[in-house]
Amino acid sequence: MKYQGKNLSDFLELPDRDIFAKTRPFYEFTEELINNEYHHWSRILTSPSEHRVKILDRYTNEEREMIMMASNNYLGLTTHPAVVEGARKALEKYGAGAGSVPLLGGYLELHKELEYKLAKMKGCEDAVVFSSGYASNVGCVSALVRKNDVAINDRLNHASIIDGCSLSGGTLRTFKHNDLDSLEKVLQSSEKQGYNGKLIIVDGVFSMDGDITNLPGIKALADRYHARIMIDEAHATGVIGPNGRGTPEHFKMEGQIDLVAGTLSKALAGVGGFVASSKEVVNYLRFYARSHMFSTALPPATVGALIAGIDVIQNEPQLRKRLWSNIEYMTSNLKRMGFNLGNAETAIIPIIIGDEDILKKVSREVHQAGIFVNSVYYPAVPKKLSRLRLSLMATHTQEDLDDTLAVLERVGKKYGLI
Amino acid sequence: MKYQGKNLSDFLELPDRDIFAKTRPFYEFTEELINNEYHHWSRILTSPSEHRVKILDRYTNEEREMIMMASNNYLGLTTHPAVVEGARKALEKYGAGAGSVPLLGGYLELHKELEYKLAKMKGCEDAVVFSSGYASNVGCVSALVRKNDVAINDRLNHASIIDGCSLSGGTLRTFKHNDLDSLEKVLQSSEKQGYNGKLIIVDGVFSMDGDITNLPGIKALADRYHARIMIDEAHATGVIGPNGRGTPEHFKMEGQIDLVAGTLSKALAGVGGFVASSKEVVNYLRFYARSHMFSTALPPATVGALIAGIDVIQNEPQLRKRLWSNIEYMTSNLKRMGFNLGNAETAIIPIIIGDEDILKKVSREVHQAGIFVNSVYYPAVPKKLSRLRLSLMATHTQEDLDDTLAVLERVGKKYGLI
Repeated sequence: MKYQGKNLSDFLELPDRDIFAKTRPFYEFTEELINNEYHHWSRILTSPSEHRVKILDRYTNEEREMIMMASNNYLGLTTHPAVVEGARKALEKYGAGAGSVPLLGGYLELHKELEYKLAKMKGCEDAVVFSSGYASNVGCVSALVRKNDVAINDRLNHASIIDGCSLSGGTLRTFKHNDLDSLEKVLQSSEKQGYNGKLIIVDGVFSMDGDITNLPGIKALADRYHARIMIDEAHATGVIGPNGRGTPEHFKMEGQIDLVAGTLSKALAGVGGFVASSKEVVNYLRFYARSHMFSTALPPATVGALIAGIDVIQNEPQLRKRLWSNIEYMTSNLKRMGFNLGNAETAIIPIIIGDEDILKKVSREVHQAGIFVNSVYYPAVPKKLSRLRLSLMATHTQEDLDDTLAVLERVGKKYGLI
Repeated sequence: MKYQGKNLSDFLELPDRDIFAKTRPFYEFTEELINNEYHHWSRILTSPSEHRVKILDRYTNEEREMIMMASNNYLGLTTHPAVVEGARKALEKYGAGAGSVPLLGGYLELHKELEYKLAKMKGCEDAVVFSSGYASNVGCVSALVRKNDVAINDRLNHASIIDGCSLSGGTLRTFKHNDLDSLEKVLQSSEKQGYNGKLIIVDGVFSMDGDITNLPGIKALADRYHARIMIDEAHATGVIGPNGRGTPEHFKMEGQIDLVAGTLSKALAGVGGFVASSKEVVNYLRFYARSHMFSTALPPATVGALIAGIDVIQNEPQLRKRLWSNIEYMTSNLKRMGFNLGNAETAIIPIIIGDEDILKKVSREVHQAGIFVNSVYYPAVPKKLSRLRLSLMATHTQEDLDDTLAVLERVGKKYGLI
């Protein structure tokens, strides 16, 4: 792109004496997206994040209902009565905030209970809670991977893991997505290069593709090359495994993974992140993970909701059953229509389009037809893999699914996608 | 320190093939602190973070009451009825969580209202909310300071700003604490070295010392050297300025500071962070600040409480008046007794001790006497500036203050501090 005579591959690169200069062409860029009705980020919700939502439409200036296909509230827990009641009770007992960081005075009995339940759910000795999933990955990786250590990442790992690696004093290396041969090559060359410690990091369920990591293969390689494993269970907790305990349970490998991290904001429907591990590692992270050390503890209402949510995941398997029946219905019908879903196998369903201009138009039409989905462009994914991204919930009705399929089929045909 | 025959200046440095090795000597270190009753981190609260709290004592295994001198709940808003009611209403309307990141579906009308109120409070065009103060500083700095830009920091800036600088592609430089000559030298040498953009970053109120930045002097230098200014108002919002609007209001400089950042977890009594600035900068941060882009939006109850809290700060000046009368009473009495308070001038009062062995013993005795304060050791501060750190609240009673003073005087005399 060009701006004031300069060629830019990204707005970030605009060299200028004013550190704010780069924000102006980007503002013009987003204004142009709005003028073309291509801007569907930050849609304003006036209702809870349920299977149908109300939004204030940026283009019509009116409130309208949409079918929500972009929420991580996989089990519908944000408005589950037991979860809301857990929040209310904690708010009444403890007030609106924790008042301090966990180490210095903000550690409520409630936080300890949440950490205990998370550790138990993940088959680990202890767990530590962070203010977000971004914070838990950044804090955990940067605390453990130090100078002369190496973090070996699946190429599609979440941004927060990459930022944790960048912030650490160690080396960041990547292997091809879910490719054991590529991982083994990186392990071998890391051995040769004489790093001290090695940490293999993978997402359990990958956030843009919805596929599951090959954990048994990774574990075998980690054992052979004396590496530790960290798995990010953001999109796996509550969704996969017979009891919703995530990827290790899915592969019958509970208790065998060194570091189990995740978010509390997706199936668990609140906000926050956690890392579960041995008591020594968790104790270390409480002091050395700077995003934990320097962040106020989660508010009581959030923690109360999360504690109740863990119980619901355990006690109401019918929610997960319903989610999976929705996943199977949508996936099989989209495939039957001829859409390219990549390797989707969980609640995240990418519809790969691969042409950003078509994706913009598809995105506008799907929005106008009342379906709330997100479009994913470069640099979040390679341009030729640009996509719509759907997220399914247990609470989607048959009508929600069929209405969405009908819109996608119509628009898909119009733009030659199917 | 020594561990298994190796000399370590920090546990982090332990070289080992196992990335977890460094966590084991640190675990032994904390166990030893516990054995000596020197470990007062992560005390478990069984009550709200008010002027008096209940804790489960690690050493007696009993519940006991303490005077809370370590909360950032400066105005007592965590349990203010209007704040709790704001949380409850939002919880009832929107449920326990936002379900997604702000850009992709988690942006509630409530978030927009909070951002509007924060922008107005800070005299800026717009504001963007993050999941924590750590996240807002890390995200803002790393998004704006790019390759060939330089971030020029007061040496005592908060850890989150330093991490933001480390994560950015730019250069991190520091100047002596609150020293304009030192700042000018760094600005001059940065000009010579030909950086593109320059961002001066300061805390409004410094978190370990409680003193206020010299904003007028910094502004004059920024103008002379074409630098932008970012101020972190974590400990200033709600506390300083005639209407509690923070450092720019304190200096009658509202609307003159380029980036006003801060936390929502201290006087505002919730959790989260924000950055207020021009509409172009805020729009840019929504997409380029990775800690924002990749973190679920704050839960409705938290946002509802924060919106109510901003109104309380505005409508109940008596809370701030009470806080300041407590600050003046404590500061003058501690000085009269002969304690070294550094340059304390706000709700954070350091009592500088400067000998870590004495500090440990003081800390144990103060805890046993029922006063909840924190001890700050190296590397958070230089060893010879190790300290107790008190935080005052509007809700402290005369009895709370006098009881605390009596304990500090007794212990201070016993250990030769006064």
